Amino acid sequence: MDFELIRTLIKPADTKMVLLVLDGLGGLPANPKDFTELEKAETPNLDNLAREGICGLHQPIGPGITPGSGPSHLALFGYDPIQYQVGRGVPAALGIKFDLVKNDVAARGNFCTVDKQGKVIDRRAGRIPNEKNLELCKKLRKIKIPDVELFVDTVKEYRFLLVMRGENLSGQLADTDPQNTGLKPLPPKPLTSEAERTAELVKQFIEKAGEVLAEDHPANMVLMRGFSQKPDWPVFSDTFGIKAAAIAAYPMYRGVSRLVGMDILETGETLEDEITTLEKNWNDYDFFYFHIKKIDSAGEDGDYNRKVTLIEEADTVIPRIMKLNPDVVVVTGDHSTPSVMKNHSWHPVPVLLWSKYCRNDMVNRFGERACLAGALGPRLPTVDLMPLMMANADRLKKFGA
Amino acid sequence: MDFELIRTLIKPADTKMVLLVLDGLGGLPANPKDFTELEKAETPNLDNLAREGICGLHQPIGPGITPGSGPSHLALFGYDPIQYQVGRGVPAALGIKFDLVKNDVAARGNFCTVDKQGKVIDRRAGRIPNEKNLELCKKLRKIKIPDVELFVDTVKEYRFLLVMRGENLSGQLADTDPQNTGLKPLPPKPLTSEAERTAELVKQFIEKAGEVLAEDHPANMVLMRGFSQKPDWPVFSDTFGIKAAAIAAYPMYRGVSRLVGMDILETGETLEDEITTLEKNWNDYDFFYFHIKKIDSAGEDGDYNRKVTLIEEADTVIPRIMKLNPDVVVVTGDHSTPSVMKNHSWHPVPVLLWSKYCRNDMVNRFGERACLAGALGPRLPTVDLMPLMMANADRLKKFGA
Repeated sequence: MDFELIRTLIKPADTKMVLLVLDGLGGLPANPKDFTELEKAETPNLDNLAREGICGLHQPIGPGITPGSGPSHLALFGYDPIQYQVGRGVPAALGIKFDLVKNDVAARGNFCTVDKQGKVIDRRAGRIPNEKNLELCKKLRKIKIPDVELFVDTVKEYRFLLVMRGENLSGQLADTDPQNTGLKPLPPKPLTSEAERTAELVKQFIEKAGEVLAEDHPANMVLMRGFSQKPDWPVFSDTFGIKAAAIAAYPMYRGVSRLVGMDILETGETLEDEITTLEKNWNDYDFFYFHIKKIDSAGEDGDYNRKVTLIEEADTVIPRIMKLNPDVVVVTGDHSTPSVMKNHSWHPVPVLLWSKYCRNDMVNRFGERACLAGALGPRLPTVDLMPLMMANADRLKKFGA
Repeated sequence: MDFELIRTLIKPADTKMVLLVLDGLGGLPANPKDFTELEKAETPNLDNLAREGICGLHQPIGPGITPGSGPSHLALFGYDPIQYQVGRGVPAALGIKFDLVKNDVAARGNFCTVDKQGKVIDRRAGRIPNEKNLELCKKLRKIKIPDVELFVDTVKEYRFLLVMRGENLSGQLADTDPQNTGLKPLPPKPLTSEAERTAELVKQFIEKAGEVLAEDHPANMVLMRGFSQKPDWPVFSDTFGIKAAAIAAYPMYRGVSRLVGMDILETGETLEDEITTLEKNWNDYDFFYFHIKKIDSAGEDGDYNRKVTLIEEADTVIPRIMKLNPDVVVVTGDHSTPSVMKNHSWHPVPVLLWSKYCRNDMVNRFGERACLAGALGPRLPTVDLMPLMMANADRLKKFGA
């Protein structure tokens, strides 16, 4: 999508949009005669929206490309995920409300277990509890490195955040996570010559981390991933001329929303918390990104039935959204996570767009194969969804006379 | 579409193509269970072509983008409408056969009504009759500005054309039309420093226009729009290696056809006039662009029933076209104009392509939702239609060996 073109066409309107993202929605049948998770789920409310709306499947990155959650969300927000790339450290920092300033280098850290030879034997240190994480972060905060300020923040379980602040830092570093057990952590390798000094500083941090954690088995070492600096990207609200808010229980999704400049609304862990947050803030925004995480987790766990049940649970919030009288509602996933694959996949993601002016198609059931016949087509580039939402919300002027 | 590639592939053939454009064809149902205008219309001849041909919907500019008539026609002619942009003054001039030369600056003028404070109270001066327009243009022709030759030509009702000829002129000027009543006309603002002198000359013209029209209430002032210079674009006939003619009753459509270098055939105001023009000139051209305007006007007036009737009327010319034994016929609109919206819209436009070699699909009815299942897909980029017509007319060579 062409941000410059869109910017010349935006116009104000008194309309409201909801982008409801059921994380990892797309699935697969166990065999060709079976149902996908979404097809199996009883979703009378989504089916109703499908009947009155237009359906299709969207493709976040490109044909055959399995998306990570960051890029697929950027695509949903209208950002070309190939052009707009950033390491995971930045959204991780923003997701826990760390106030990143320009040139800060952020990275995600894992507490892990290493054996006496220094080889990784558990990349997640047995998923230590949050309380242990807090205690270990306190230890890491004692580490000092010359000429650079270090911030260590807890995230969850085995995950923490490292931010380095100082002069001439670079985020162009490779991960130190060897990805497999039985291997030593990798040295922090600079990907450009400007990153050599930062690599040296990270190396010092890791060495000292190994020292201060030596007695904390199973969490006796750290692995660092997603080194990155906050990019200077177009702001979502400016590009589309809307006031936008994110409702997401998980830090990573709050982070990617903050990265594009959305307001982050305080919410709780449950679907009930999230829908209540939407209702409370309804009058204050034009656009709501509403994220439901657990469907993806069920897919990643390979739990077909739990994924079906969670999709059915998500279906129950639709009447509460519709009661708010939105002008445009999109329901989709950020990517597919088929439970038979226990992982993200490249399969296009079912999507429905409902509005008064959408010109409904013949699809009357929200499911992967039903959506193939829809007006959005079987392979809509995901970045095209935002301009379509904007048009349906009467927020784009005519191009040319 | 890649003009350079197409140019390397064109080959001569003794085949004829008709591009029949029903302006504003695409529509909307009043509610999800109803029909669109085209679905409601009884169109046995179009349905026949749909049955033997291939169908789909095309998207003139991009997802969610509502096209103006100029850009959407350029897309139908194969020109990327983002790349090929021109102000409306140029097609307006070409549409009334004004012989624009290089560097001429053309603009559309409205006669308008201003009050004693100079504020616009009617942007169209009560839609004065054509005869009054002629009289006022005569007055405007008396205006002289140093170092520049001025041409004023009547168009219709409240509309006229201004062309400035001289050295170092620029079309980079903003409109003086404030778009709303209760405001004074805007000064002609230069958009680049090269346009400063032209802005000053236009300012003088407008001041003098106010003087000579002072006693002509309600048409006592002018608003200027669409300043532009004739661009140096590829010529349609050269690009596609065909002799092409336009049959269009309305000046604007003749203008955009002339802009790409088509011959403009003399015709009358009625559909009967237009089809007779086609029949008379059949032997002299390879490609005919045939434009029917009134369907769009019915949509803009919000008149569902009239739009239906006019589509049915257009259907009746199909047998006369087919009797000429064309090799390729495309029937489509330049954009959608749903009568429920009384305006152009972003919705993809139904299209059918008929030829002996098209490999017909399963669609047997020409309508928005029936076309979703067609071989052209639900979102064909409009610029792709020309190469498809060319291929079906056996006018493109193989690419590579």
